[in-house]
Amino acid sequence: MSVFFYGCITLDGYLADKNHGLNWLHETGSPEETDCDRFYSEMDVAIMGRRTFEEIARLENAASYYPTTENYVFTHADSLPQRGFTPVRGDVAEFVTGLGPDKNIWIIGGNTILAPLLERDMVDCLIVQVAPVLLGEGIPLFTQKEATRRFRLETVRQYGQFAELVYRK
Amino acid sequence: MSVFFYGCITLDGYLADKNHGLNWLHETGSPEETDCDRFYSEMDVAIMGRRTFEEIARLENAASYYPTTENYVFTHADSLPQRGFTPVRGDVAEFVTGLGPDKNIWIIGGNTILAPLLERDMVDCLIVQVAPVLLGEGIPLFTQKEATRRFRLETVRQYGQFAELVYRK
Repeated sequence: MSVFFYGCITLDGYLADKNHGLNWLHETGSPEETDCDRFYSEMDVAIMGRRTFEEIARLENAASYYPTTENYVFTHADSLPQRGFTPVRGDVAEFVTGLGPDKNIWIIGGNTILAPLLERDMVDCLIVQVAPVLLGEGIPLFTQKEATRRFRLETVRQYGQFAELVYRK
Repeated sequence: MSVFFYGCITLDGYLADKNHGLNWLHETGSPEETDCDRFYSEMDVAIMGRRTFEEIARLENAASYYPTTENYVFTHADSLPQRGFTPVRGDVAEFVTGLGPDKNIWIIGGNTILAPLLERDMVDCLIVQVAPVLLGEGIPLFTQKEATRRFRLETVRQYGQFAELVYRK
């Protein structure tokens, strides 16, 4: 099992503004030349929080976004208004472990999903696109408890106005 | 007048651990091949907060660290136990403006110096070396008030285990 985070943050470390908005991201332009498609093609499972799901669900063609992965949403809801997404609840780390040994798992967001996995040292790869924007307030990507965790910087690339940093455990 | 930030942070955005310690940085190794010397040679003034000064002052050969710049420390102290450093107080943005039009000013840290300059849109260049470390808690670099501020990503480089991101206004 390998656990990946792949996503955009601001230079001051936010996944979204304080209202969970992504205007800052859309205004940065699309990092079109990234390896996102290749990355996605290697994933078996996508996991996200309720807020992240809601952002996806409001997109026009939401159903087409994660067509080849098993998609799980951590939520207290019993069902979701979008085909292809399964609601789950409980301990994130246990759920991920239960997915079995051969899966590539993409943690799409948010921080409540990533934090418990970082705390148990279960994140194998962090691929972060940093947008050249400061928000000053918002939803931070990293909210795990205090502990020094070291990764290995594998590559650094520029895609348009995004700086992509790739880390492995 | 041009205002620069140049310094290291963790991947989760901290300048130092919660006790103002830099062990995480020293353990990352020195980004020796950086352009730090060239950067420094172009600076006329260095400005830092009290805590940053205290970290410098405890180094063995502290006096040799910033030999060619005018060095100012924002502190309530009337004098400093280190030659070559001048205590100042009051409004950071006003002080910086008062330095005159032709100066290159390096904001060494900490966040209480950088934040008011970001809030007044007075930071011309951010050069950030990101260490491949998560701390989970510490002294964040970016503490400016909420406001969307956009920079231009100029270059991205890898120096050993550091990712250097260069932004201009």
